[in-house]
Formats: sequence, structure tokens, C-alpha cells
Amino acid sequence: MTAPKSLSRTTPSTVAANSIVSSLLAVQTSGAGFTDLTSEVAKFVRDARAREGAVTLFIRHTSASLTIQENADPTVLVDLTTALNRLAPENAGWRPDTEGPDDMPAHIKTMLTATSLHIPVLQGALALGTWQAVYLIEHRARPHRREIVLQFVGSAG
Amino acid sequence: MTAPKSLSRTTPSTVAANSIVSSLLAVQTSGAGFTDLTSEVAKFVRDARAREGAVTLFIRHTSASLTIQENADPTVLVDLTTALNRLAPENAGWRPDTEGPDDMPAHIKTMLTATSLHIPVLQGALALGTWQAVYLIEHRARPHRREIVLQFVGSAG
Amino acid sequence: MTAPKSLSRTTPSTVAANSIVSSLLAVQTSGAGFTDLTSEVAKFVRDARAREGAVTLFIRHTSASLTIQENADPTVLVDLTTALNRLAPENAGWRPDTEGPDDMPAHIKTMLTATSLHIPVLQGALALGTWQAVYLIEHRARPHRREIVLQFVGSAG
Repeated sequence: MTAPKSLSRTTPSTVAANSIVSSLLAVQTSGAGFTDLTSEVAKFVRDARAREGAVTLFIRHTSASLTIQENADPTVLVDLTTALNRLAPENAGWRPDTEGPDDMPAHIKTMLTATSLHIPVLQGALALGTWQAVYLIEHRARPHRREIVLQFVGSAG
Repeated sequence: MTAPKSLSRTTPSTVAANSIVSSLLAVQTSGAGFTDLTSEVAKFVRDARAREGAVTLFIRHTSASLTIQENADPTVLVDLTTALNRLAPENAGWRPDTEGPDDMPAHIKTMLTATSLHIPVLQGALALGTWQAVYLIEHRARPHRREIVLQFVGSAG
Repeated sequence: MTAPKSLSRTTPSTVAANSIVSSLLAVQTSGAGFTDLTSEVAKFVRDARAREGAVTLFIRHTSASLTIQENADPTVLVDLTTALNRLAPENAGWRPDTEGPDDMPAHIKTMLTATSLHIPVLQGALALGTWQAVYLIEHRARPHRREIVLQFVGSAG
């Protein structure tokens, strides 16, 4: 562990928490890979008239997951897929699976990434960093319909 | 990255956020393995009279963790345990550990899975998918008493 | 899966949710390794006059991440670094990267750990376990300035 060389924090700003806004997002994937959800989540924040608080994404599946990753260089997403395939390979002695060889690796990849994400909203906008995008990761080989609950908690209206 | 083939979202529904409900759950594990907490979390949601919002689970330990995984086929949980053991094997050159050979792998497995989960509550029920269950994963070989903070934020009453 | 040997839960306590408190924390890292943020997050909780609710930490980067881990034995952090280096090694056939050999491993390590943390606050204090500390993990070799959004949702004042 290293001590922080320097550390600064802005004065806390407080607002009244008054709203929960919920919506269900359905995404049709085209098989294994990343789907960028950032603009859809930003649209939800606008529709919800969210001002200060946080958005939660929750994916209702165990063979697809969520992550926040680099948005600039698409080869990063290719390498992230390679990394997940190495960490959870097919045909690695998993129990016989009637769902196909991509099923058990899909569960492992889901466990190693995220089922829910939590992104602060400040002054009406997602507080993502410059290089951050929100992705759904489809871990199954074939296309699937995936459901994600979007929920804003905070001040809105 | 693949563009979403199709994507749809329901109209956002808004309610007033007015409650924080907290409770402490103690679980006695029987050694390494998965413990299904789903019905206990659902019971908390009912007791809290939660309507719209989200439940957070937070485990107060660094050698046990949380995950949301497949509830139908118990062999999935066996394979997930195998996968974690491969990613964080015992006797892999970790520093001498007076806590036993399962201690450092337990910390690594905790880092790779989740210390907190966030599950939306819609119309008074957990918004889990059909195949999703909430599990505590005990990473130590011997039984332990584990504490989990349950907290609902949203509309209740 | 093992059934819980015993399981107990305290009576839920309810308070009014009325505040969102947000602050931006900047941390200057000194290169790859762990930085303990626990006392800074505790200070934020005090400044926010938080009573009951939860604090979210969100890191605005894709090559640094967050985790909750053992606070007592510093060799645990050394072994966690070793574990991450083994799971996401440099020079492992990643695509040519003008950002340097530590860039792609940094993205993978971020995907395997956490971009956001969610810690309950009970009776004005972080509900961390005895051995839990909150860490920023810098995955790049060189020092970086990292930004973390701190946000409390709950009852305050």
C-alpha cells in the first residue's frame, strides 16, 4: 500500500432526495460481444429529469453482464473478450452441459464482472469519466434478448 | 463492440423516495461453498413494506463475498467453485500465512466477486430475473459466522 | 450449495430518506499499488452529517479501480497485486498498444475488480467490518491523478 501523495476533496453539496424513477430496457444482442448502452442511459437520465443522485443498472441474467470500460479504442474490447475467454475457457472440465459449451464459461464471466452498476448523476448528467462507456457484455455465442432495470434515485423534476 | 440490433425502453415511472430501512443479517456458513440468501432478502423486502427502490446487500468480511447466479442447476455452483479455485489456487507462492493456505485465496476470490449487491425493487418485489438467486460465497474452508447489512432505499409503508 | 446452518436478522429500522450529498475526491497515486481511502471516506460521512443510508464511491477511470480488502496485514495487498498480475499479464498477445505494455492489463484488472463501491452508513458511521478498508487500486505503472465521486444518499443533517 502506498500513502496518497496528495488528496483533495470538494466541499460536499447537499440536495433533497425526492424521487425514484424506474424503467426497463430490453436489448437484443447479436451474440458474444460488447453493446454500448451509454447513450441510452443518458437518454433515461434526461427523460427522468434527474438532477442529483445516481443511476443503477441491473441486468436480469446470469450469462450476460455489465461493465464500464474504455470508449475510445475498439481493440480494447477485443482484448477484454480474449481475457475473459482465457479466464473462463470452454471445454475446461466443466460438468456435462446440455446448454452448450459456452454456457458454463458465460456464468463464470458474469461472476467475474458486474450484474449491477451504479453511476452518480451530477447537475443532470452522468458523472462518467472522459474515457468511460457503459457496456452490456453478451457471454453466450448466440443472440439473446436481455433485460436491464434502469433506476434513478435522487432529486428530479 | 456490436451495435444493439434493437433496443426498447419502457416509459419511466416515478415515485417519491421516502424511506431507508436497515437490518443486519447473520449467516452461519458450514465451510466453503454457496448459501442461497434469496428468500431471506425477499422476506426483508416484505418486512420493510418496500414498494419501489433498491435493496443493497453489503458483506462485512474480506474472505467471503456475494454474487447473483443461476438458481436452477446446482452443478453450476460446483463449477463456479472450481473456477474460483483455478483463478486463486492455494500454495501458489503466496507469502507465509499464519491464517492457513485457504486465507490468501479467499481474499483474492473476494476481490474478484462482489462485496456489495444492488437489486431493484419494483411493485414490492425484487426485480430478479427468472434464473437469478442471491448467494453468499464462503471462501474459507471452515465454518464462519458472516454479517450482511441489508438496506432498502425507496418508497415504503 | 449449502443450506444456512443458522440465520438471524435484526428487526428492520426505518428512517426518512431526505438528502443526497456529493463531493469529488482527487487522489494523486504514486504508480501501481493500493491507496487506502477509508479515513477520507469516513471524513466525508462526518462532513455530510450522514446518519442512515449509504455512500457510493465511483472512480472515473478505466485503468484504476476500487476494492474493499483486508486492512491489517500489508502482505495481503502485495499478494493481491501478484494475483492481478497473473490474471492479466503484460505481453500476453494483446494488440499493439501505443499506451505501453501496462495499459491493456490495467483495463482487464479494472474489469475484474470494481468501478463503484456501495457502503451502508448506520448511526452516522460506515458499516465496514473490523478488517475492511476501502482502497483505490492504481493499475498503471506511472503516477496518475484519479478522480472519485463520493455520494451519500439517506438521512442527514
